[in-house]
Amino acid sequence: MSGQQSEAGSDDAGRTPQRPKGRRPGRADTRGAVLDAARAEFAAHGYEKTSMRGIARTAGVDAALLHHYFGTKQQLFVAALDFPISPDLIAQVILTGDRAGAGARIVRFAMTLWEQPPVRERLVAMLRAAATNEQVAELFRGFVERELVLRLATALGSEHPELRVELVMSQIVGLAMARYVFQVEPLASAGIDTVAALVGPTLQRYLDGVGD
Amino acid sequence: MSGQQSEAGSDDAGRTPQRPKGRRPGRADTRGAVLDAARAEFAAHGYEKTSMRGIARTAGVDAALLHHYFGTKQQLFVAALDFPISPDLIAQVILTGDRAGAGARIVRFAMTLWEQPPVRERLVAMLRAAATNEQVAELFRGFVERELVLRLATALGSEHPELRVELVMSQIVGLAMARYVFQVEPLASAGIDTVAALVGPTLQRYLDGVGD
Repeated sequence: MSGQQSEAGSDDAGRTPQRPKGRRPGRADTRGAVLDAARAEFAAHGYEKTSMRGIARTAGVDAALLHHYFGTKQQLFVAALDFPISPDLIAQVILTGDRAGAGARIVRFAMTLWEQPPVRERLVAMLRAAATNEQVAELFRGFVERELVLRLATALGSEHPELRVELVMSQIVGLAMARYVFQVEPLASAGIDTVAALVGPTLQRYLDGVGD
Repeated sequence: MSGQQSEAGSDDAGRTPQRPKGRRPGRADTRGAVLDAARAEFAAHGYEKTSMRGIARTAGVDAALLHHYFGTKQQLFVAALDFPISPDLIAQVILTGDRAGAGARIVRFAMTLWEQPPVRERLVAMLRAAATNEQVAELFRGFVERELVLRLATALGSEHPELRVELVMSQIVGLAMARYVFQVEPLASAGIDTVAALVGPTLQRYLDGVGD
Protein backbone atom coordinates (compact mmCIF):
# COMPACT_ATOMS: atom_id res chain seq x y z
CA MET A 1 0.00 0.00 0.00
CA SER A 2 2.05 2.89 -1.30
CA GLY A 3 1.88 6.43 0.05
CA GLN A 4 0.33 5.25 3.32
CA GLN A 5 0.04 7.96 6.01
CA SER A 6 1.66 7.29 9.36
CA GLU A 7 -1.61 7.64 11.25
CA ALA A 8 -5.33 8.07 10.55
CA GLY A 9 -6.22 11.72 10.97
CA SER A 10 -2.72 12.97 10.24
CA ASP A 11 -2.75 16.33 8.51
CA ASP A 12 0.75 16.55 7.01
CA ALA A 13 1.02 17.64 3.41
CA GLY A 14 1.37 14.70 1.05
CA ARG A 15 4.60 14.19 -0.82
CA THR A 16 3.19 11.28 -2.78
CA PRO A 17 4.28 11.41 -6.42
CA GLN A 18 0.94 10.35 -7.83
CA ARG A 19 -2.64 10.39 -6.60
CA PRO A 20 -3.93 6.88 -5.89
CA LYS A 21 -7.41 5.77 -6.95
CA GLY A 22 -9.86 7.45 -4.56
CA ARG A 23 -8.97 9.73 -1.68
CA ARG A 24 -6.93 8.24 1.13
CA PRO A 25 -8.61 8.24 4.59
CA GLY A 26 -5.30 9.14 6.24
CA ARG A 27 -5.63 12.85 5.53
CA ALA A 28 -7.58 14.97 8.01
CA ASP A 29 -10.01 16.25 5.36
CA THR A 30 -10.53 12.73 4.05
CA ARG A 31 -11.07 11.47 7.57
CA GLY A 32 -13.77 14.11 8.02
CA ALA A 33 -15.34 13.14 4.69
CA VAL A 34 -15.42 9.47 5.73
CA LEU A 35 -17.03 10.26 9.09
CA ASP A 36 -19.59 12.51 7.38
CA ALA A 37 -20.34 9.79 4.82
CA ALA A 38 -20.67 7.19 7.59
CA ARG A 39 -23.13 9.35 9.54
CA ALA A 40 -25.17 9.97 6.39
CA GLU A 41 -25.23 6.29 5.41
CA PHE A 42 -26.06 5.05 8.93
CA ALA A 43 -28.83 7.64 9.25
CA ALA A 44 -30.28 6.77 5.84
CA HIS A 45 -30.17 2.96 6.08
CA GLY A 46 -29.84 2.11 9.77
CA TYR A 47 -26.92 0.20 11.26
CA GLU A 48 -27.72 -3.26 9.93
CA LYS A 49 -28.22 -2.28 6.29
CA THR A 50 -25.29 0.10 5.98
CA SER A 51 -22.19 -1.41 4.33
CA MET A 52 -18.56 -0.35 4.46
CA ARG A 53 -18.66 -0.44 0.66
CA GLY A 54 -21.54 2.06 0.59
CA ILE A 55 -19.74 4.40 2.99
CA ALA A 56 -16.55 4.17 0.89
CA ARG A 57 -18.52 4.99 -2.26
CA THR A 58 -20.24 7.99 -0.64
CA ALA A 59 -16.95 9.28 0.74
CA GLY A 60 -15.15 8.64 -2.55
CA VAL A 61 -12.46 6.47 -0.97
CA ASP A 62 -11.21 2.98 -1.64
CA ALA A 63 -13.09 0.33 0.40
CA ALA A 64 -9.91 -1.56 1.32
CA LEU A 65 -8.28 1.64 2.59
CA LEU A 66 -11.44 2.40 4.59
CA HIS A 67 -11.10 -0.94 6.41
CA HIS A 68 -7.40 -0.34 6.88
CA TYR A 69 -7.82 3.05 8.50
CA PHE A 70 -11.17 2.70 10.29
CA GLY A 71 -11.38 -1.02 11.06
CA THR A 72 -14.75 -2.77 11.24
CA LYS A 73 -18.19 -1.29 10.64
CA GLN A 74 -18.68 -1.36 14.40
CA GLN A 75 -15.50 0.67 14.94
CA LEU A 76 -16.45 3.19 12.26
CA PHE A 77 -19.89 3.61 13.86
CA VAL A 78 -18.31 4.24 17.28
CA ALA A 79 -16.01 6.86 15.71
CA ALA A 80 -18.64 8.53 13.50
CA LEU A 81 -21.45 8.64 16.09
CA ASP A 82 -19.08 9.32 18.99
CA PHE A 83 -20.61 6.32 20.77
CA PRO A 84 -19.31 6.55 24.34
CA ILE A 85 -17.96 2.99 24.56
CA SER A 86 -16.89 0.20 22.27
CA PRO A 87 -19.16 -2.89 22.28
CA ASP A 88 -16.02 -5.01 21.98
CA LEU A 89 -14.80 -3.66 25.30
CA ILE A 90 -18.20 -4.15 26.96
CA ALA A 91 -18.37 -7.75 25.75
CA GLN A 92 -14.86 -8.34 27.02
CA VAL A 93 -15.71 -7.00 30.49
CA ILE A 94 -18.78 -9.22 30.72
CA LEU A 95 -17.45 -12.41 29.17
CA THR A 96 -13.85 -12.42 30.42
CA GLY A 97 -13.26 -13.37 34.06
CA ASP A 98 -15.45 -15.38 36.40
CA ARG A 99 -19.10 -15.47 35.43
CA ALA A 100 -20.31 -15.12 39.03
CA GLY A 101 -18.60 -11.74 39.33
CA ALA A 102 -19.88 -10.31 36.04
CA GLY A 103 -22.76 -8.31 37.56
CA ALA A 104 -20.60 -6.32 39.95
CA ARG A 105 -17.89 -6.03 37.29
CA ILE A 106 -20.32 -4.35 34.86
CA VAL A 107 -21.44 -1.82 37.49
CA ARG A 108 -17.88 -0.96 38.46
CA PHE A 109 -16.78 -0.68 34.84
CA ALA A 110 -19.73 1.55 33.86
CA MET A 111 -19.43 3.82 36.89
CA THR A 112 -15.66 4.17 36.54
CA LEU A 113 -16.17 5.25 32.93
CA TRP A 114 -18.99 7.67 33.76
CA GLU A 115 -16.95 9.38 36.45
CA GLN A 116 -14.70 10.69 33.66
CA PRO A 117 -16.32 13.99 32.63
CA PRO A 118 -15.85 13.59 28.82
CA VAL A 119 -17.47 10.13 28.88
CA ARG A 120 -20.28 11.33 31.13
CA GLU A 121 -20.96 14.32 28.87
CA ARG A 122 -21.04 12.07 25.83
CA LEU A 123 -23.35 9.61 27.60
CA VAL A 124 -25.81 12.34 28.60
CA ALA A 125 -25.68 13.80 25.06
CA MET A 126 -26.47 10.36 23.66
CA LEU A 127 -29.42 9.80 26.04
CA ARG A 128 -30.65 13.31 25.17
CA ALA A 129 -30.36 12.76 21.42
CA ALA A 130 -32.11 9.39 21.60
CA ALA A 131 -34.89 10.79 23.80
CA THR A 132 -35.62 13.69 21.47
CA ASN A 133 -34.94 12.25 18.02
CA GLU A 134 -36.58 9.02 16.91
CA GLN A 135 -34.18 8.55 14.02
CA VAL A 136 -31.23 8.70 16.43
CA ALA A 137 -32.98 6.29 18.80
CA GLU A 138 -33.63 3.91 15.91
CA LEU A 139 -30.01 4.11 14.80
CA PHE A 140 -28.62 3.36 18.26
CA ARG A 141 -31.20 0.59 18.63
CA GLY A 142 -29.97 -1.15 15.48
CA PHE A 143 -26.36 -0.84 16.57
CA VAL A 144 -26.94 -2.09 20.10
CA GLU A 145 -29.16 -4.98 19.02
CA ARG A 146 -26.60 -6.16 16.48
CA GLU A 147 -23.32 -5.56 18.28
CA LEU A 148 -24.24 -6.12 21.90
CA VAL A 149 -27.53 -7.94 22.39
CA LEU A 150 -27.10 -10.63 19.75
CA ARG A 151 -23.47 -11.21 20.61
CA LEU A 152 -23.89 -11.39 24.38
CA ALA A 153 -27.10 -13.40 24.12
CA THR A 154 -25.32 -16.02 22.01
CA ALA A 155 -22.58 -16.28 24.62
CA LEU A 156 -25.03 -16.46 27.55
CA GLY A 157 -27.50 -19.00 26.19
CA SER A 158 -30.31 -20.20 28.53
CA GLU A 159 -33.88 -18.87 28.31
CA HIS A 160 -34.75 -15.41 26.91
CA PRO A 161 -31.08 -14.43 26.50
CA GLU A 162 -31.78 -11.29 24.40
CA LEU A 163 -34.40 -10.09 26.84
CA ARG A 164 -32.02 -10.60 29.76
CA VAL A 165 -29.18 -8.73 28.09
CA GLU A 166 -31.60 -5.87 27.39
CA LEU A 167 -32.69 -5.84 31.03
CA VAL A 168 -29.03 -5.52 32.05
CA MET A 169 -28.84 -2.54 29.70
CA SER A 170 -32.11 -1.10 31.02
CA GLN A 171 -30.77 -1.11 34.58
CA ILE A 172 -27.52 0.51 33.45
CA VAL A 173 -29.36 3.18 31.43
CA GLY A 174 -31.73 3.79 34.35
CA LEU A 175 -28.77 4.14 36.71
CA ALA A 176 -27.19 6.68 34.36
CA MET A 177 -30.47 8.61 34.10
CA ALA A 178 -30.98 8.66 37.88
CA ARG A 179 -27.37 9.65 38.62
CA TYR A 180 -26.59 12.11 35.84
CA VAL A 181 -29.89 13.36 34.40
CA PHE A 182 -32.30 13.44 37.35
CA GLN A 183 -29.43 13.53 39.86
CA VAL A 184 -31.55 12.17 42.72
CA GLU A 185 -29.77 12.07 46.06
CA PRO A 186 -28.33 10.03 47.69
CA LEU A 187 -27.91 7.92 44.53
CA ALA A 188 -26.15 10.66 42.53
CA SER A 189 -23.37 10.87 45.14
CA ALA A 190 -23.23 7.23 46.24
CA GLY A 191 -19.84 5.52 45.96
CA ILE A 192 -19.05 2.80 43.47
CA ASP A 193 -18.75 0.10 46.19
CA THR A 194 -22.18 0.87 47.59
CA VAL A 195 -23.87 0.90 44.19
CA ALA A 196 -22.01 -2.21 42.99
CA ALA A 197 -23.14 -4.12 46.12
CA LEU A 198 -26.78 -3.22 45.44
CA VAL A 199 -26.96 -3.30 41.64
CA GLY A 200 -24.37 -6.03 40.92
CA PRO A 201 -26.69 -8.88 42.05
CA THR A 202 -29.50 -7.48 39.86
CA LEU A 203 -27.34 -7.71 36.74
CA GLN A 204 -26.02 -11.10 37.86
CA ARG A 205 -29.58 -12.40 38.13
CA TYR A 206 -30.41 -11.15 34.63
CA LEU A 207 -27.22 -12.70 33.22
CA ASP A 208 -27.75 -16.04 34.97
CA GLY A 209 -31.41 -16.23 34.01
CA VAL A 210 -32.48 -17.13 37.57
CA GLY A 211 -36.23 -16.93 38.00
CA ASP A 212 -37.09 -17.58 34.35
CA MET B 1 -67.86 29.15 51.52
CA SER B 2 -70.44 31.12 49.53
CA GLY B 3 -70.59 31.13 45.73
CA GLN B 4 -68.70 27.83 45.51
CA GLN B 5 -68.55 26.33 42.02
CA SER B 6 -69.82 22.79 41.62
CA GLU B 7 -66.49 21.53 40.28
CA ALA B 8 -62.94 22.73 39.71
CA GLY B 9 -62.58 23.71 36.08
CA SER B 10 -66.29 24.36 35.63
CA ASP B 11 -66.93 27.17 33.20
CA ASP B 12 -70.53 28.09 33.97
CA ALA B 13 -71.36 31.77 34.32
CA GLY B 14 -71.42 32.85 37.95
CA ARG B 15 -74.70 33.99 39.47
CA THR B 16 -73.04 35.00 42.69
CA PRO B 17 -74.41 38.30 43.95
CA GLN B 18 -71.02 39.68 45.01
CA ARG B 19 -67.45 39.02 44.03
CA PRO B 20 -65.51 37.26 46.83
CA LYS B 21 -62.01 38.36 47.85
CA GLY B 22 -59.64 37.11 45.11
CA ARG B 23 -60.60 35.20 41.98
CA ARG B 24 -62.21 31.83 42.44
CA PRO B 25 -60.28 28.86 41.05
CA GLY B 26 -63.53 27.25 39.94
CA ARG B 27 -63.72 29.27 36.74
CA ALA B 28 -61.86 27.94 33.70
CA ASP B 29 -59.79 31.11 33.21
CA THR B 30 -58.91 31.16 36.91
CA ARG B 31 -57.94 27.50 36.76
CA GLY B 32 -55.57 28.33 33.92
CA ALA B 33 -54.14 31.27 35.88
CA VAL B 34 -53.53 29.02 38.91
CA LEU B 35 -51.77 26.35 36.83
CA ASP B 36 -49.63 29.06 35.15
CA ALA B 37 -48.76 30.54 38.53
CA ALA B 38 -47.92 27.08 39.90
CA ARG B 39 -45.59 26.32 36.98
CA ALA B 40 -43.88 29.70 37.39
CA GLU B 41 -43.46 29.33 41.15
CA PHE B 42 -42.24 25.72 40.97
CA ALA B 43 -39.77 26.64 38.21
CA ALA B 44 -38.48 29.65 40.12
CA HIS B 45 -38.14 28.10 43.58
CA GLY B 46 -38.09 24.32 43.07
CA TYR B 47 -40.64 21.93 44.56
CA GLU B 48 -39.54 22.04 48.18
CA LYS B 49 -39.43 25.83 48.56
CA THR B 50 -42.63 26.62 46.70
CA SER B 51 -45.65 27.26 48.94
CA MET B 52 -49.36 27.09 48.22
CA ARG B 53 -49.55 30.60 49.70
CA GLY B 54 -47.00 31.88 47.16
CA ILE B 55 -48.87 30.28 44.27
CA ALA B 56 -52.16 31.76 45.49
CA ARG B 57 -50.53 35.20 45.72
CA THR B 58 -49.08 34.97 42.20
CA ALA B 59 -52.39 33.76 40.77
CA GLY B 60 -54.37 36.41 42.71
CA VAL B 61 -56.62 33.84 44.38
CA ASP B 62 -57.48 33.09 47.97
CA ALA B 63 -55.14 30.47 49.53
CA ALA B 64 -57.98 28.59 51.22
CA LEU B 65 -59.89 28.36 47.96
CA LEU B 66 -56.71 27.14 46.26
CA HIS B 67 -56.50 24.24 48.71
CA HIS B 68 -60.19 23.58 48.31
CA TYR B 69 -60.05 23.31 44.54
CA PHE B 70 -56.58 21.90 43.92
CA GLY B 71 -55.87 19.89 47.07
CA THR B 72 -52.32 19.51 48.34
CA LYS B 73 -49.13 20.97 46.89
CA GLN B 74 -48.36 17.50 45.51
CA GLN B 75 -51.72 17.37 43.71
CA LEU B 76 -51.27 20.87 42.30
CA PHE B 77 -47.79 19.91 41.02
CA VAL B 78 -49.16 16.79 39.31
CA ALA B 79 -51.88 18.91 37.65
CA ALA B 80 -49.63 21.85 36.68
CA LEU B 81 -46.67 19.80 35.41
CA ASP B 82 -48.87 17.08 33.92
CA PHE B 83 -46.87 14.53 35.92
CA PRO B 84 -47.91 11.14 34.52
CA ILE B 85 -48.82 9.53 37.85
CA SER B 86 -49.73 10.58 41.38
CA PRO B 87 -47.13 9.72 44.05
CA ASP B 88 -50.02 8.91 46.39
CA LEU B 89 -51.12 6.17 44.03
CA ILE B 90 -47.57 4.82 43.60
CA ALA B 91 -47.08 4.70 47.37
CA GLN B 92 -50.39 2.92 47.74
CA VAL B 93 -49.45 0.27 45.17
CA ILE B 94 -46.13 -0.39 46.92
CA LEU B 95 -47.21 -0.23 50.53
CA THR B 96 -50.69 -1.79 50.36
CA GLY B 97 -50.90 -5.57 49.98
CA ASP B 98 -48.33 -8.20 50.83
CA ARG B 99 -44.77 -6.92 50.99
CA ALA B 100 -43.34 -10.01 49.26
CA GLY B 101 -45.41 -9.29 46.15
CA ALA B 102 -44.52 -5.59 45.92
CA GLY B 103 -41.78 -5.98 43.28
CA ALA B 104 -43.97 -7.74 40.71
CA ARG B 105 -46.89 -5.46 41.65
CA ILE B 106 -44.84 -2.34 40.76
CA VAL B 107 -43.81 -3.76 37.37
CA ARG B 108 -47.38 -4.77 36.49
CA PHE B 109 -48.77 -1.44 37.64
CA ALA B 110 -46.18 0.60 35.69
CA MET B 111 -46.50 -1.45 32.50
CA THR B 112 -50.30 -1.43 32.59
CA LEU B 113 -50.19 2.35 32.87
CA TRP B 114 -47.62 2.75 30.08
CA GLU B 115 -49.63 0.63 27.69
CA GLN B 116 -52.19 3.43 27.66
CA PRO B 117 -51.06 5.74 24.83
CA PRO B 118 -51.77 9.08 26.61
CA VAL B 119 -49.78 7.99 29.68
CA ARG B 120 -46.94 6.64 27.54
CA GLU B 121 -46.78 9.87 25.52
CA ARG B 122 -46.70 11.90 28.71
CA LEU B 123 -43.99 9.64 30.17
CA VAL B 124 -41.79 9.97 27.08
CA ALA B 125 -42.35 13.74 27.02
CA MET B 126 -41.28 13.94 30.66
CA LEU B 127 -38.12 11.86 30.07
CA ARG B 128 -37.37 14.03 27.04
CA ALA B 129 -37.89 17.30 28.93
CA ALA B 130 -35.75 16.13 31.86
CA ALA B 131 -32.99 14.90 29.55
CA THR B 132 -32.78 18.17 27.63
CA ASN B 133 -33.54 20.80 30.27
CA GLU B 134 -31.64 20.87 33.53
CA GLN B 135 -34.18 23.12 35.22
CA VAL B 136 -36.93 20.61 34.45
CA ALA B 137 -34.74 17.74 35.69
CA GLU B 138 -34.06 19.67 38.91
CA LEU B 139 -37.76 20.37 39.39
CA PHE B 140 -38.78 16.72 38.96
CA ARG B 141 -35.87 15.72 41.18
CA GLY B 142 -37.14 17.89 44.05
CA PHE B 143 -40.66 16.58 43.64
CA VAL B 144 -39.68 12.91 43.47
CA GLU B 145 -37.22 13.16 46.39
CA ARG B 146 -39.82 14.81 48.62
CA GLU B 147 -43.00 12.98 47.66
CA LEU B 148 -41.76 9.52 46.78
CA VAL B 149 -38.26 8.78 48.05
CA LEU B 150 -38.59 10.26 51.54
CA ARG B 151 -42.04 8.84 52.04
CA LEU B 152 -41.33 5.33 50.82
CA ALA B 153 -37.93 5.21 52.54
CA THR B 154 -39.56 6.07 55.86
CA ALA B 155 -42.05 3.24 55.38
CA LEU B 156 -39.39 0.72 54.30
CA GLY B 157 -36.76 1.36 56.95
CA SER B 158 -33.64 -0.90 57.02
CA GLU B 159 -30.29 0.14 55.56
CA HIS B 160 -29.92 2.76 52.78
CA PRO B 161 -33.70 3.08 52.31
CA GLU B 162 -33.53 6.22 50.10
CA LEU B 163 -30.87 4.65 47.89
CA ARG B 164 -32.92 1.49 47.50
CA VAL B 165 -36.10 3.39 46.57
CA GLU B 166 -34.07 5.31 43.99
CA LEU B 167 -32.73 2.06 42.55
CA VAL B 168 -36.31 0.82 42.16
CA MET B 169 -37.01 4.05 40.27
CA SER B 170 -33.83 3.69 38.20
CA GLN B 171 -34.88 0.21 37.01
CA ILE B 172 -38.37 1.46 36.18
CA VAL B 173 -37.02 4.50 34.29
CA GLY B 174 -34.51 2.28 32.46
CA LEU B 175 -37.28 -0.14 31.52
CA ALA B 176 -39.33 2.77 30.13
CA MET B 177 -36.31 4.07 28.18
CA ALA B 178 -35.52 0.63 26.72
CA ARG B 179 -39.15 -0.12 25.81
CA TYR B 180 -40.42 3.23 24.60
CA VAL B 181 -37.40 5.39 23.72
CA PHE B 182 -34.79 2.94 22.39
CA GLN B 183 -37.45 0.31 21.61
CA VAL B 184 -34.99 -2.58 21.66
CA GLU B 185 -36.47 -5.92 20.69
CA PRO B 186 -37.55 -8.31 22.13
CA LEU B 187 -37.96 -6.15 25.27
CA ALA B 188 -40.17 -3.55 23.56
CA SER B 189 -42.74 -6.20 22.64
CA ALA B 190 -42.38 -8.51 25.65
CA GLY B 191 -45.58 -9.23 27.59
CA ILE B 192 -46.26 -7.98 31.10
CA ASP B 193 -46.05 -11.48 32.63
CA THR B 194 -42.61 -12.14 31.14
CA VAL B 195 -41.19 -8.77 32.22
CA ALA B 196 -42.79 -8.97 35.68
CA ALA B 197 -41.21 -12.41 36.23
CA LEU B 198 -37.76 -11.06 35.36
CA VAL B 199 -37.88 -7.53 36.82
CA GLY B 200 -40.19 -8.12 39.80
CA PRO B 201 -37.49 -9.93 41.86
CA THR B 202 -35.04 -7.06 41.14
CA LEU B 203 -37.38 -4.49 42.64
CA GLN B 204 -38.22 -6.86 45.49
CA ARG B 205 -34.53 -7.18 46.35
CA TYR B 206 -34.13 -3.39 46.37
CA LEU B 207 -37.21 -2.98 48.55
CA ASP B 208 -36.18 -5.72 50.99
CA GLY B 209 -32.61 -4.49 51.24
CA VAL B 210 -31.19 -8.00 50.73
CA GLY B 211 -27.47 -7.91 50.11
CA ASP B 212 -26.78 -4.63 51.98
